Formats: sequence, C-alpha cells, structure tokens
Amino acid sequence: MEVLVFGSAIVDFVAYADRLPKAGETLHGHKFVTGYGGKGANQCVAAARLGAKCGMIAKLGDDAWGANYLKQLQAENVNVDYVEQCKGETTGIAQISVANSGENHIVIVVGANNLLSVQDVKKAKNLFDTAKVLICQFETPLNATLEALQSFKGISILNAAPAIAQTPPDLIKGATIFCVNETEAALTTGCEQISTLEHAKTAMKKLLQMGANNVIITLGALGAVYVRGEAPHTFIHVPAVRVEKVVDTTGAGDAFIGALAFNMARFNDLPWHQLIGAANRVAAYSVQHPGTQASFPNPEQAYYNAEYTWQEL
Amino acid sequence: MEVLVFGSAIVDFVAYADRLPKAGETLHGHKFVTGYGGKGANQCVAAARLGAKCGMIAKLGDDAWGANYLKQLQAENVNVDYVEQCKGETTGIAQISVANSGENHIVIVVGANNLLSVQDVKKAKNLFDTAKVLICQFETPLNATLEALQSFKGISILNAAPAIAQTPPDLIKGATIFCVNETEAALTTGCEQISTLEHAKTAMKKLLQMGANNVIITLGALGAVYVRGEAPHTFIHVPAVRVEKVVDTTGAGDAFIGALAFNMARFNDLPWHQLIGAANRVAAYSVQHPGTQASFPNPEQAYYNAEYTWQEL
Repeated sequence: MEVLVFGSAIVDFVAYADRLPKAGETLHGHKFVTGYGGKGANQCVAAARLGAKCGMIAKLGDDAWGANYLKQLQAENVNVDYVEQCKGETTGIAQISVANSGENHIVIVVGANNLLSVQDVKKAKNLFDTAKVLICQFETPLNATLEALQSFKGISILNAAPAIAQTPPDLIKGATIFCVNETEAALTTGCEQISTLEHAKTAMKKLLQMGANNVIITLGALGAVYVRGEAPHTFIHVPAVRVEKVVDTTGAGDAFIGALAFNMARFNDLPWHQLIGAANRVAAYSVQHPGTQASFPNPEQAYYNAEYTWQEL
Repeated sequence: MEVLVFGSAIVDFVAYADRLPKAGETLHGHKFVTGYGGKGANQCVAAARLGAKCGMIAKLGDDAWGANYLKQLQAENVNVDYVEQCKGETTGIAQISVANSGENHIVIVVGANNLLSVQDVKKAKNLFDTAKVLICQFETPLNATLEALQSFKGISILNAAPAIAQTPPDLIKGATIFCVNETEAALTTGCEQISTLEHAKTAMKKLLQMGANNVIITLGALGAVYVRGEAPHTFIHVPAVRVEKVVDTTGAGDAFIGALAFNMARFNDLPWHQLIGAANRVAAYSVQHPGTQASFPNPEQAYYNAEYTWQEL
C-alpha cells in the first residue's frame, strides 16, 4: 500500500441553467451531470490514476449512489476493504447549480461521511501499519482525522479543507505535511488574503508557528510554495506549469494532493521541488480537462519525468 | 386499460438546509431525499395505487435513474411497454433546495422528457384505441400532447401544468376536461388571482369562452369547482374533505388528477360531484402524508365510497 486516504466520498449533482433560481422559483435548466467527488475520494483516485497502490477508508450510504461509488472506486483500482455502505444512511451529495455566467451555489449533505470514526482507524490497523503515505481532509469528523494522523507512522498529508478559522493545534501538529490552497491558508492563519508569494511566505511562517511540521501552499496559476520544518527555514517557490487555456478548475487541488502523495510514496529520495513540481503538472493537466475525477491524468498524460524549476523566496 | 398517461417522468433530488444558498456559496445541509416525480408519472401512480389498470407513455434516460424509475413504475403495476430509456439522454431531474422556513428553489432539467413525440402517439396506437381515460400535462413537448389528445376517442383530461400564458386554443379544445389549480387557472386565463369561489367561477367562464369542453379548477383547502360544457352552464363547488394537519402538499394536485381519471374510467355513470369529491378525498390523504408518490393512498386509505356534498355557485 503506497497511499492510504482517510476521508470523504461525495456524489456531485450539477444542474446547468441560464441563471441561478431565486427563492420560491422553479427554473428550467438545460443540462444535468452526475459526478463522483468528495475531496478524499478525489485525492485517492488522482493517486491511483498515476499508478499508486491506493486504499480508501470512507463511508457511503446504502443507496444506489453508494453501490455505484463503490464500483467506481474498484474500477480505479482502489482497495475498498474499508469503504462501508452504512445502513439507513444516504451517500454524501453535493447539489450544485451553475449559471451561464459561471456563478454557482452548492448545498452539501454529507450523510454517511459523518459516521467515519475513531473506530474505523482501529479497524483498518493493517493498512495504517503498512501504507507509506496517509492523506486526510476536513470533510469528515475531526476527532477521527486526528486519530488517523496520530496512529500513522509514515508520511501524513493533512489537506485542511474546507478550512476552519480555529483549527485545533493537535491536527496541525499531527501531520507530516500541512497542505492547503491560498484561500484555506488565509482562513487558517487569519491572514487577510494571500495573492502574492510574499503573502504566502508570511502564511507559511505563521503555520510553522502554529505547529506545522512542513507546509505546502498551492497558489493556482502561481504554482506552489513550501517550507520544511528543519531550521534554518528555507521558503521555496515551485512555479506552475504553463497552461494555454483553463477549461475547468474543479478537482485541480485534489489532483495536486493525490499526485503529491503518490510522489512522496514512490520517489521519496527526490528533492521536494521535484515532487511538488510533478504534482503541479498533474494539477495543470486537470484544469485543462473537464470534470473532476475525469480530468485526472495517467503518468503519460502528465509528462511526469521532467526537471522542475524552483527559487528561494 | 383504464387510464393512459402520456407525459413526464422526473426524479426529484431534495436537499434540506437551514437556509437557501446564495450565489457563490457552499452551504451544508442536513438531509437529502431522492424521490420519483414528474406530473405524468405521479398521476399515473396515483391512479394505479387506487387499482386502475394503467399505462404510461414516457421517456427516461439511459442512466441509473431511468432504470430505477422503470422498475418503480413496474412495481406500481403500471404498463411500461411504451416507457423508453433513450440512448445518450439523461433522465429528467428536479434539483430542489428547501430551507427551514419552507422556502425552496428548484432547477428542472427535463432531459429525455423532451423526446416524447408525435411518433410515440402513433407507436402506442393499441393503447390509445383501448384506454378509457387519457391524461396529458405540459411537461413534455406540446405538439405531441396535442397529437395525443386529438388521437384519443375516450375521455381525455388535460392538466395544463405548468401553465403557460398563451395556451394554444387547439390544446384547450382538444381535451374532454381542462383541469388546473387556481394559480394555473389565473395564468391561463389572465385573471389576476383566484382566491375565492367567485374568482374561480369567472375563470371557468373564461375557459369555456377559450374553448374548453368541461372545466375543473382545484382550489386547495377549498376543494374544487367544475362546470360542464352543455348549456345552460351550472357552476358547482365540491368542498374539500376536512384535514386536521397538513404535512406535505407535494403531489396533492397529481393525486387529484390520477384519482379523477380512475373515477372517470371506473365509475363513469356517477355524477361528477361524486367523482370529484372522491378525488378531493385522495388529495386530502396526500397532504396528510409525507412525500410525493409515497403519499398516494390505496382505496381503503382514501375511504373511497362516500357521499360527497356539493353546491351550486
């Protein structure tokens, strides 16, 4: 087992209409798409697509979605021994309306995801003992996430998303790598906004002060920055791969995390700028293709084996 | 075949949250429910639940919903010989968000329903030739609805919903019974609002002038009114059955239409106030139970065989 994901699985329902409906209104839309999502499952599939030996620990409902999602994960070569369909629960769903302008609104009902518990960490001890890299997020109960991080001896990546204003310090300290995007970093650190590399450096310093062992912040078109915990701290910028045309950014962050986990598991002797640069490339592929999991590349599509540039901040 | 329904089948996705999301916002809701809906299928199931021999002519997508809906209709003893899963199409869906206040907004993507065509009327000639009562609505293409009404020799009920401001006169003239609720009657006739029996009488007069052969307007808690086409016109009010507590009004209108069709097919020698009174009773049962199709009664639950009061307006 290379990459173990402890987290969320959510089905996306996306209805496209000319505009968003108002309260009390029934609108006719022109397209409806169903997709597999949830940060946990997305990250797991991103890693699996690259060839990682992956396992997922997650909760689904005992509905049609749960059964379909389980099959989908299996089709992606994900070990689903600890993906459970919970009796009487609905699979997590995200109901998304998208207007022609691109504006959207979303209602998420996490359903079965709320049942992922401390007990599930204990039950999957054999996976926790053998996996090289663990990924967690904040879409499932935090006490179980903390247990997962603290039970794991390998490299753990905490994708603290969706971000919360008062992140419990134990969670920040519990992970090998604290990894968020610019918006999540701002909310977590209390920084007003992070739109430049200088802002990002400030946020990284703050996260180290808050107890993070290593920090990565993804910055969209700017690529990513990182700092390792060992003093003296060197703050490094790994620029993004050039993208001609952005088609759909959905899932790009999860593509990055999944790729990063795979890289950490498979190429742990390479310098971090190489591991992060290759993850940037996977995210760049994702934004140039439609869909969430559908936009994740295989190694050939990602042109994986390249030299990535970097600079000190 | 007693009741033939030519019309829509739509799957409802209902997400419940404290409030409705704003543009650009992601909200967490607390409950998600999937249900079978669409006015056509609802009316068909309402009639079938009462014991009518029913057939449905409708279009579904070749997705999981289409397959599930087909099974669901079969389980309700509906003849589905002419319910087709269309290649490459999505099943019609209604994405519904409901706030704690009861406010909602809805995006409908009709998908495969748009493919119901004139050709489908011709293909199902054997059902059109033998059914006693036909029901149509306005959730599928109007030219096919017109063909269905004009091809049918029995009693046809046009539920002109969702209502349109400029209803083609041929559609109004094409049905034996033009049946709508108070809001739909207002939109169809251009009357400002219909909240009293007097308003309803005015709207019925207008609908007769517009070419309707017989008119029924349902009025929620007030019951229903009707007028038959033969002069001299007598406008009749059939009061609603008393309801202690309204639980969920969704589908009540469709319960009425389905019951009316069953009554017209099975008890055609009874006076209309009896047929409409019994349909009122079915609608009253529906509003006292949660869900759409789940709230439709069987004959015992509806206490079907009663005497219903009425009065001339």
